[in-house]
Amino acid sequence: MNAIIVTIGDEILVGQTVDTNSAHIAKELNKLGIAIDEILSISDTEEHIKQALNQYVGRADFVFLTGGIGPTNDDITKHVLTEYFNDKLVIYPEILDKIKNFFERFNKPFLEVNRLQALLPENARIIENTRGTASGMWFKKGKSNIFSMPGVPYEMKGLLDDFLAELVKEYPLGNLYHNTVRVTGIGESYLAEQLKEWEQKILNKNISVSYLPSVGELKIRLTGKLDQKEFIDQNIDYLLTEKRKYVYGREHESIVRVIGDILIERNLTLGTVESCTGGSIAKQIVSMSGSSEFYNGSIVSYTNELKANLVGVKQETLDANGAVSEQVVREMAINGAKILGTDYCISVSGIAGPSGGSDAKPVGTVWIGLTCPEGTYAKKFSFGYNRKRNIQASVYAGLNFLRLSLIEEINL
Amino acid sequence: MNAIIVTIGDEILVGQTVDTNSAHIAKELNKLGIAIDEILSISDTEEHIKQALNQYVGRADFVFLTGGIGPTNDDITKHVLTEYFNDKLVIYPEILDKIKNFFERFNKPFLEVNRLQALLPENARIIENTRGTASGMWFKKGKSNIFSMPGVPYEMKGLLDDFLAELVKEYPLGNLYHNTVRVTGIGESYLAEQLKEWEQKILNKNISVSYLPSVGELKIRLTGKLDQKEFIDQNIDYLLTEKRKYVYGREHESIVRVIGDILIERNLTLGTVESCTGGSIAKQIVSMSGSSEFYNGSIVSYTNELKANLVGVKQETLDANGAVSEQVVREMAINGAKILGTDYCISVSGIAGPSGGSDAKPVGTVWIGLTCPEGTYAKKFSFGYNRKRNIQASVYAGLNFLRLSLIEEINL
Repeated sequence: MNAIIVTIGDEILVGQTVDTNSAHIAKELNKLGIAIDEILSISDTEEHIKQALNQYVGRADFVFLTGGIGPTNDDITKHVLTEYFNDKLVIYPEILDKIKNFFERFNKPFLEVNRLQALLPENARIIENTRGTASGMWFKKGKSNIFSMPGVPYEMKGLLDDFLAELVKEYPLGNLYHNTVRVTGIGESYLAEQLKEWEQKILNKNISVSYLPSVGELKIRLTGKLDQKEFIDQNIDYLLTEKRKYVYGREHESIVRVIGDILIERNLTLGTVESCTGGSIAKQIVSMSGSSEFYNGSIVSYTNELKANLVGVKQETLDANGAVSEQVVREMAINGAKILGTDYCISVSGIAGPSGGSDAKPVGTVWIGLTCPEGTYAKKFSFGYNRKRNIQASVYAGLNFLRLSLIEEINL
Repeated sequence: MNAIIVTIGDEILVGQTVDTNSAHIAKELNKLGIAIDEILSISDTEEHIKQALNQYVGRADFVFLTGGIGPTNDDITKHVLTEYFNDKLVIYPEILDKIKNFFERFNKPFLEVNRLQALLPENARIIENTRGTASGMWFKKGKSNIFSMPGVPYEMKGLLDDFLAELVKEYPLGNLYHNTVRVTGIGESYLAEQLKEWEQKILNKNISVSYLPSVGELKIRLTGKLDQKEFIDQNIDYLLTEKRKYVYGREHESIVRVIGDILIERNLTLGTVESCTGGSIAKQIVSMSGSSEFYNGSIVSYTNELKANLVGVKQETLDANGAVSEQVVREMAINGAKILGTDYCISVSGIAGPSGGSDAKPVGTVWIGLTCPEGTYAKKFSFGYNRKRNIQASVYAGLNFLRLSLIEEINL
């Protein structure tokens, strides 16, 4: 079974919108063993939509279309599809009622333009959108299933779930198998060097090994056939145990989840005191649902005044060493744990850039501190040159610093 | 002039990586008036890479390839391209020196696999990568320019800049014109209703109007020919002045930038006290380079203990009203401004979900407070149902609350 994803909309072609939908759809289809052949982005014109339909309908088992079915004038996908499949638009009264309810629930006035969202192709199968007003439309032609969804990611995800739940009733799905681990604290080429022999053993079994780097972390993915699941899983376990200094978790386990699970199990609490990361560590932690079970909170002491007055870093420590120093992050971590009432506290002070660097402390210099029940550690990191990247790398380094201490792999 | 972007790599097709590169490339090309016809993602196999080259070389003026030129075994793009263009791989000594320097600069050992990064096609034009070890390769065939870059976004961006700087020396570029505004605090269909007549006037001039919604904000983009620039700019100005309650800035102006510019100009300072957003507002502010000129910092009081002990919210206020209440966000904002020593303080307390909701306060209920020199405001918001979305919408609502107060459009 194979699929094609087609995103419709100028916003992607002019670079105004990053296409996150395709990654989500691809991930969900992969779980079902449906391989994605291609992902194509086209402009929202009748000509381009028809051209894509001509190209893929009949060739692929599934064609997923996103975008162009909203309420505004630039949304033409519904009309093009209705014509292409020789269908006609009619009002669906039960959809109209649901759209009206949707507006009532949020206390918003119902406009004529919203009524048009209940005008849908008569012969397509309509999948109700519980998160918005643009319904999903499921057309069939030959061996191909064509499914059209809105481009708003939140709405698309809900509709895709409902659509796939219907799909698995009709098709026997599932024959590819992936398993993935997440890595931090080491570069791609160093890890590949360490894993050279192991990798050759995997490749000899016709299982592919992919290295997927991003800022602060790396993923390693093994892909084979479903009947190789056991071998793949064993090798994933090997990485998780033998390389645990770097390999921190499975695909669905964020580093926050890994840390959080340990802290919750041991009934320990965490706080953070951030300077250059400006709340990014806190944000990452709080993105985990249930983080309130171990996370108390953070002080973002962005100015030196707050480092002194609120966090209680000694003025002489700041004067003698500067804010980006071992001594300052140590005091931030120790005092932070006291103020926030936590067992552990991560602290960060660095130069994110683009300004603020010097010869002695260039942009990208970041000190990270950690207070634990056993003592306080601090370590200096030298990252790249760009503000966003320095911040993101610092977030991972701070969280990994704590992880290494929790699994007793810290080595300073 | 037209272009095609081809991303190479299974990581996108299996949904493990979101393709942010294409949006960046598209945006940069659009500035030069190069329209993107299609964006295609394919798997990193010889067959698919060749198929894409056959499809686009000769048809498009520019073909941008990303991915598959890293140091690990799964990177095959360089080899496929070298064969396709009848070239051969040779060591470039000056590139080898630069790669060695790159490793020395970061105090990292130089491995054999890194040496292979200096093995490049003899007849292609090589663009040096100052941010990594995979060089850019520029091939020409007929009217087509084919440019291959690494998939790591940070490295790709640097190489693209250098490549485009060369390109504009050889080609006369520029004939499309876009202008965009950013909107928050109103839904797509309501704004479209308000702008109905205005929109018709624009469309009558053959200028397209696109609404681009995302969580918390919306963009409106006008696209026409370069000789319609004046008319487009006038209409963008119209939106910025006449609809300023919702239209907060131009495309490159984040809401933080808009607020920051006003605060810096008036020599005012800002702090934040966050509960359910857990540092996300701080993170958004600090992502702006130069934010230290107006932003002091934040307290992320995620627990009720910290709200009481660190922020000084009265225990009886918490007991009588609960943490998600008007009274609590008022005290958070007032006390926050004092503790952080700022003129303005935004506070947030809400139920991000998925747990913690009740009939009286369902998931998505968020109170936002704001202390200003003129007084303290508070407002309740009811967002959707998903944790990430509730947090993101709260960030925009909090920042917009401050913006409305700064431009004297607040209306409570």
